[in-house]
Amino acid sequence: MTREKIAQAIEILKEKNIDLWLTFVRETDVMADPILDFILGTTCVWQSAFILTNTGKKIAIVGSLDVENIKNQEIYDEVIDYIGSIREELIKVLDRIKPQKIAINYSKDSEVADGLTYGMYLSLIDYLTNTPYQKKLISAEEIISALRGRKSQEEIKRIKEAIAATEKIFNQLTKFFKPELTEIEIARFIKKETLKLNLGFAWNEAYCPSVYTGPQEGGAHSGPTKRKIEPGHILNIDFGVKKENYVSDLQRVWYFRRKGEKEAPEEVEKAFQTVREAIQISGQAIKPGKQGWEIDKLARNYILSQGFEEYPHALGHQVGRTAHDGSALLAPRWERYGQRPFEKLEKGQVFTLEPRINLIDYGVVSVEEIILITENGTEFLSHPQKELIHI
Amino acid sequence: MTREKIAQAIEILKEKNIDLWLTFVRETDVMADPILDFILGTTCVWQSAFILTNTGKKIAIVGSLDVENIKNQEIYDEVIDYIGSIREELIKVLDRIKPQKIAINYSKDSEVADGLTYGMYLSLIDYLTNTPYQKKLISAEEIISALRGRKSQEEIKRIKEAIAATEKIFNQLTKFFKPELTEIEIARFIKKETLKLNLGFAWNEAYCPSVYTGPQEGGAHSGPTKRKIEPGHILNIDFGVKKENYVSDLQRVWYFRRKGEKEAPEEVEKAFQTVREAIQISGQAIKPGKQGWEIDKLARNYILSQGFEEYPHALGHQVGRTAHDGSALLAPRWERYGQRPFEKLEKGQVFTLEPRINLIDYGVVSVEEIILITENGTEFLSHPQKELIHI
Repeated sequence: MTREKIAQAIEILKEKNIDLWLTFVRETDVMADPILDFILGTTCVWQSAFILTNTGKKIAIVGSLDVENIKNQEIYDEVIDYIGSIREELIKVLDRIKPQKIAINYSKDSEVADGLTYGMYLSLIDYLTNTPYQKKLISAEEIISALRGRKSQEEIKRIKEAIAATEKIFNQLTKFFKPELTEIEIARFIKKETLKLNLGFAWNEAYCPSVYTGPQEGGAHSGPTKRKIEPGHILNIDFGVKKENYVSDLQRVWYFRRKGEKEAPEEVEKAFQTVREAIQISGQAIKPGKQGWEIDKLARNYILSQGFEEYPHALGHQVGRTAHDGSALLAPRWERYGQRPFEKLEKGQVFTLEPRINLIDYGVVSVEEIILITENGTEFLSHPQKELIHI
Repeated sequence: MTREKIAQAIEILKEKNIDLWLTFVRETDVMADPILDFILGTTCVWQSAFILTNTGKKIAIVGSLDVENIKNQEIYDEVIDYIGSIREELIKVLDRIKPQKIAINYSKDSEVADGLTYGMYLSLIDYLTNTPYQKKLISAEEIISALRGRKSQEEIKRIKEAIAATEKIFNQLTKFFKPELTEIEIARFIKKETLKLNLGFAWNEAYCPSVYTGPQEGGAHSGPTKRKIEPGHILNIDFGVKKENYVSDLQRVWYFRRKGEKEAPEEVEKAFQTVREAIQISGQAIKPGKQGWEIDKLARNYILSQGFEEYPHALGHQVGRTAHDGSALLAPRWERYGQRPFEKLEKGQVFTLEPRINLIDYGVVSVEEIILITENGTEFLSHPQKELIHI
């Protein structure tokens, strides 16, 4: 997988006309630049430089005690070691390549492209003082965005498997439900089923799954509570698994009928159909070249047009090694999303679609599906929830 | 534990005369500032600011979907939420506190104090444009260095337990050894024993334990190989476990006698005694107020005085939540260690002592012990290896 992604990275460097990409890290057991999963696949201790060029060079400069571990990966053609300081070897390599642009891993908008710490940035600037290279530094965001976004066949396969496992667990849930169950009990059941399948969790276990029954203040990234399922509750579950380091992220909703009810109340049914329709409308509008905010707006406007409030977040995010992956985002043009809603969508990207309607009397109607962007449009990787499940 | 460390942090802010400490993070499932283990204890998704002041204020500003999770931690007295951008709420809080200094998490020298990414730094600078606060930013290194370094009783207890478990496994090893075992088989035995004790590994499992038998190129951070124990080999193992999030990091050495040998060769024995002595000399010289380079120099010079080459790394590092922890370092004054060898040692810090002698014909003689700095000196937390174990 690492070798596959490194080959892809070199193609991206050619395409973007960037001659050198420098990943500069240290002590990755303490905190690791997230790109290392794609271009290294192990840890290192001393300050280390991993260099890829648009001519296909793969060079690592690492502390003398890290050399053997890095060589064992058989990814970098040259593994150069140092003892006192990385400065000299780094400059020698740059002198050899004479790059016009040096892409480094920082980004205001995209956390996955922001693996360089501020202290390491300052060290790099210091090392490059009195060289022509200090002024050649640019952000590697577009490289990383493409590399994480454009999924290989293997990556898509893993995501599909994670989705299938999640759907299986959701299906088991419908049979498991009974009145008086608490959110914590439901979460426990899901966790047990996940471990039976030998899978990990897509995000922090404290709120994976997130389980919300009944009227809500509108939380999302919080853990299950002792609150019980009651008649008249909407139950929303946000859950994903991790399989071979790739994850799923899906939401489903159920409605618990009150005595005498044969159907869900009209308001609940309408909210569900609106969310479902918003997913279909936005999903079908996605294709390479569109911008995320355009897609978000379709779903957002549709929900507003049906008389509901707009959701206080993005329509969808990419999925990959982490539940919130990649850089391009299906988000409104709010300050906190920076440039991400403006990035052009690309073939091979995998996105969630997760509009939300909060019904003050019943709970949160939020469904989350996953799509793959294809040559001309999209393919749903999840099996969209078509009906509100009554219990 | 988090509450204990937060109280300690506020005391440190008073002592250092820093009125406000700002930890600024996002999407901590992707990459987390390592200080969050001490001051938050959970993850967050949107841009979040965790603020502590020398007057004891504890304020969190987080995205609306993170609010519930952060409130549930019951650590921050105020949890402020936002939807569009954190900017406005952040500035409101700063306007209320009017800090003279705002410490943020960056450091050229110390990775544990360098949790702020360069992209997040740029965002912060942007948010603080046209405010008096942009010019008040300073590094939080001395806060974090003190907070991670000065171990509480509970932290020391956990480290001691991790050390005891490691020593237990080392003792079992001596009985387990037989000729022809490979490094991989030895590592497998250690892993099995660790899992039996329900413990985790102190660092990357690929090279925890590190097992080196026989003559070496001098590697360290690399994994076990198929190389077999042979008569005339020195076997060195570098290993640590993780217990309740705190780790140990110890090294032991064994010598495998050749046919007819009753003792280890004189050169091997002398190297072992020299390493052992270097640990005692340096360990006994440590006390609060000393600088790390002075201690390293004692061990380094002693080894040189005995006719051996100096070791190509630091004498010792701190241990805590990670095997390489804290900021102060017992290291020579080499560029790559920056200011860390000059930091004054403090009571409550826990350090390894790990001088190394590489014998070209036999292998690596490297022993690693762990000491705690006390009011007036040191206490060994590990039971120092006193004799080279012959097999």
